[in-house]
Amino acid sequence: MTAPTLEALVTPISFATDPSRYRHWRLATGGAIATLTLDVDPAGSLFPGAELKLNSYDLGVDIELADAVQRLRFEHPEVRAVVIRSGKDNVFCAGANITALAKSTHQHKVNFCKFTNETRLAIEDASENSGQRYLAAIGGPAAGGGYELAAACDWIMLVDDRRSSVSLPELPLLAVLPGTGGLTRLTDKRKVRRDRADLFCASEEGARGKRAVEWRLVDECVPPSSWDDKIRERALALAATSDRPSDAKGIALPAVDPAPYLRLDLDRDRRQATITILGPTTLPTDLAGIHAAGAEFWPLGMARALDGALVHLRFNEPELGIIVFKSEGDPARALAADALLETHRDDWFVRETRLFLKRTFKRVDMMARSLFTLIEPGSCFAGSLAELAFAADRSFIHIGTRAGDNRPRATLTLSPLNFGAYPMGNGLTRLATRFLGEPDSLAAAERAIGAPLSAEDAEALGLVTAAYDEVDWDEEIRLMLEERASFSPDALTGLEANLRFAGPETMETRIFGRLTAWQNWIFQRPNAAGDQGSLKLYGTGARPKFNPERV
Amino acid sequence: MTAPTLEALVTPISFATDPSRYRHWRLATGGAIATLTLDVDPAGSLFPGAELKLNSYDLGVDIELADAVQRLRFEHPEVRAVVIRSGKDNVFCAGANITALAKSTHQHKVNFCKFTNETRLAIEDASENSGQRYLAAIGGPAAGGGYELAAACDWIMLVDDRRSSVSLPELPLLAVLPGTGGLTRLTDKRKVRRDRADLFCASEEGARGKRAVEWRLVDECVPPSSWDDKIRERALALAATSDRPSDAKGIALPAVDPAPYLRLDLDRDRRQATITILGPTTLPTDLAGIHAAGAEFWPLGMARALDGALVHLRFNEPELGIIVFKSEGDPARALAADALLETHRDDWFVRETRLFLKRTFKRVDMMARSLFTLIEPGSCFAGSLAELAFAADRSFIHIGTRAGDNRPRATLTLSPLNFGAYPMGNGLTRLATRFLGEPDSLAAAERAIGAPLSAEDAEALGLVTAAYDEVDWDEEIRLMLEERASFSPDALTGLEANLRFAGPETMETRIFGRLTAWQNWIFQRPNAAGDQGSLKLYGTGARPKFNPERV
Repeated sequence: MTAPTLEALVTPISFATDPSRYRHWRLATGGAIATLTLDVDPAGSLFPGAELKLNSYDLGVDIELADAVQRLRFEHPEVRAVVIRSGKDNVFCAGANITALAKSTHQHKVNFCKFTNETRLAIEDASENSGQRYLAAIGGPAAGGGYELAAACDWIMLVDDRRSSVSLPELPLLAVLPGTGGLTRLTDKRKVRRDRADLFCASEEGARGKRAVEWRLVDECVPPSSWDDKIRERALALAATSDRPSDAKGIALPAVDPAPYLRLDLDRDRRQATITILGPTTLPTDLAGIHAAGAEFWPLGMARALDGALVHLRFNEPELGIIVFKSEGDPARALAADALLETHRDDWFVRETRLFLKRTFKRVDMMARSLFTLIEPGSCFAGSLAELAFAADRSFIHIGTRAGDNRPRATLTLSPLNFGAYPMGNGLTRLATRFLGEPDSLAAAERAIGAPLSAEDAEALGLVTAAYDEVDWDEEIRLMLEERASFSPDALTGLEANLRFAGPETMETRIFGRLTAWQNWIFQRPNAAGDQGSLKLYGTGARPKFNPERV
Repeated sequence: MTAPTLEALVTPISFATDPSRYRHWRLATGGAIATLTLDVDPAGSLFPGAELKLNSYDLGVDIELADAVQRLRFEHPEVRAVVIRSGKDNVFCAGANITALAKSTHQHKVNFCKFTNETRLAIEDASENSGQRYLAAIGGPAAGGGYELAAACDWIMLVDDRRSSVSLPELPLLAVLPGTGGLTRLTDKRKVRRDRADLFCASEEGARGKRAVEWRLVDECVPPSSWDDKIRERALALAATSDRPSDAKGIALPAVDPAPYLRLDLDRDRRQATITILGPTTLPTDLAGIHAAGAEFWPLGMARALDGALVHLRFNEPELGIIVFKSEGDPARALAADALLETHRDDWFVRETRLFLKRTFKRVDMMARSLFTLIEPGSCFAGSLAELAFAADRSFIHIGTRAGDNRPRATLTLSPLNFGAYPMGNGLTRLATRFLGEPDSLAAAERAIGAPLSAEDAEALGLVTAAYDEVDWDEEIRLMLEERASFSPDALTGLEANLRFAGPETMETRIFGRLTAWQNWIFQRPNAAGDQGSLKLYGTGARPKFNPERV
């Protein structure tokens, strides 16, 4: 129908990187305060032909940021505050690159926004839970996604000169929304008065100086003369609130080899990806052993492999609408891994591992794919891995053995980590969300901690959708997967987004629910995405002509 | 571009009706229990050519329902429980009529869903706040919107036979979502387990009998032999929880003449509608006088006129993207009206009037139009009317007098009703939402109750966006309105939907935020709305071919 888009030419997009390969960020460490400097290489876009002017970013720039935020947590226990600043004289960051965005498919636009939102939430998670506080030091204009990046930080400093400003010019310039949480953080995090937020978002030039402070858009304005001193002072003050260890050795994160942790099987005819998690085989016995294992500590290695598979499927396999989770291994060992995570929870590295598991399971929740978990003979859905059953839209457990299969019967086992370590975006555990109307069922599940539950027991406790024996299993699962593949992908995405997040709303669910849903709608409308729409005409000098109809 | 749609041929859509003119509902009253019988006239669609089979509904059917729900509150103080049932033997209700939906424009689809959602929320408001409880008595299939209507009731009864069932078959049949709050009410109101909700929503046939009860989809299943007895028993039990008066005389609601209450001026060139509220001239002095005035009691008359103007603009003037609120009158009299509403708040009719004002202001919040309130000399934005300033995206107050204009200077006055009578969908007052980050400002506003605030004071208290004097007023307002009219209508809709509802989320904000936003997106996608999409092909026997790409 249309010419191939740029990213179709360069898939698969790779998410593996490290500071030695960064083209757009510089990471300086060496004490309590780290500095992340954004200095985008205009020629370094993921999309050949797009020029990343004015520190604007595409997915490739954000992949590096996500990597840096992650490495700071694991590799740099000494870092207690991170300063984000620009490496360019004239601009902090101009936000998402519009040329790249306009040329990308609808699905890439949506997934790009989702990934960048997850990165900003990871910054807030580091601040809230890892003792790594973030400071945005804005010199020059911070526009659109540039200001939204700052809004994810704990403290925003703005140079008090005529050229430094913050703005969200998406609406007047591009006819789309600020899509990286800006609107939600304006009203709910920074508590900017809504009519001021409206004025701010309708203005191309944004705000600076006293007004930016008075409207709570930034936390302080600083004269150029004291800029570097003030940054250091604020960073030290933030660092002083941290509980990071003072004499710990970082855990290196080499490139991930997923083979020990999972198998990813793609069935394009059935539009289905199967992720089989391989349970732990060897585990350390004490904290020293955990640190010695480092990135090969099974929970961390598994989370890294799973996280990588998820983002790969999102961007590179959009037509695989179904993800089936399976597992293989010894449930007792999976539980032993959880016991290590629980016993040593106060250790900084174990804490980071648990937090990364939390974020990875949230990434599962946010997959716009139908999720099914199959608990079969020989599987190890115990403790943390059981989250994959509770994250799924449906989960099934096999009753009894299979002819000719001597693997152990399927069981499901809960651990204490299922009851608090991995809250969803709504702030509740997956089990609490599941049993929103059945507090007794939640209590019964908690009493079952540690017991390998048979298929019948797991079903009776409401922990799975259904249990089937050998006679029914293959047929029921096959029919279900075929049926799912026949439904409209869009309606499924909307259905799943609605059913997965019952209960309380948080800033995070508001971002992915209200904000993202509206942005997806706008991305689909001719006023933005049409040939005469604002995204297509941006930079041409021509003004888009809008269909004036309101809904 | 495309052939004119059906509703384009029949605009303007009228929202005025009364039971003598209903074509689709029968309202039976005469005691504590009323019965609303849905018996859709297949030939009675608003859209010539669409046949409303199987008790399916279009906007016209829902306009009658909204009217009935409203009249039951005002005209029937004696009614304490309302039974909704079907007048057809073979079906309860098949939901929204797909032929009408498929032929309607995107804006009509979206507004149809919004209106029907407001009607269902009005049912829940009647139950929660007016002592009028609702019971759905389902015989035959209740599919899609038919089941969603039942889900808005306090109690759902289902005949225990093979042909009576509840279902949400939108996803498998139509590739859209159940759009009338069904998904939200499943998970959050009825607390159906999410994997069961997923199974239910993926099934064309739905659930019946024991499973429907076990999954909490209905509250009870009743054998046909005891059906009518059981309905009466349950209705009496619901009625027993009511605080409605026992010997009151209803307030008739004749057709609204808006002239005494507002002027509606349309400026199509500027894409702007101006609603000028006319303040009260005469007011009763006591409760007997309020009842004697009835529908002409100014707060009620004004609310009815305003509500009518809002729905008219939504459906019949989609290109007017800007609504300007003005007022004319004596602020002291507007405050006197509020004093009556506050003094007599325990009276059932005054309570209904306050609740209707609440719902009308919520309708303002939900306008997908840019809202500006201009507080000019001679205006009467005092108490309840000041909600229009707080509901607006921006509000402005005129400083001082105008040359040649001897009307009193503009003031803004607060009353106790601004601090609790009119919560938004998020459960907070508009002022509390406005001052989410400034509790001191909220307290200062409360201390100003009753004082006519000058422009300077209103601005200093943060109650308006800005104050301009005569020199700047015309130019500033004109530029702002011109600028707004130049922006993308879609991006504005998304922006406003995000900025208006800071703070807590409720089931109501989830419906309009998450659910509606996703549905709007789906309504725009070719898989649903395209020429080969499921809405277009429904009933033809052809199967839609979906683009399998997920986002």
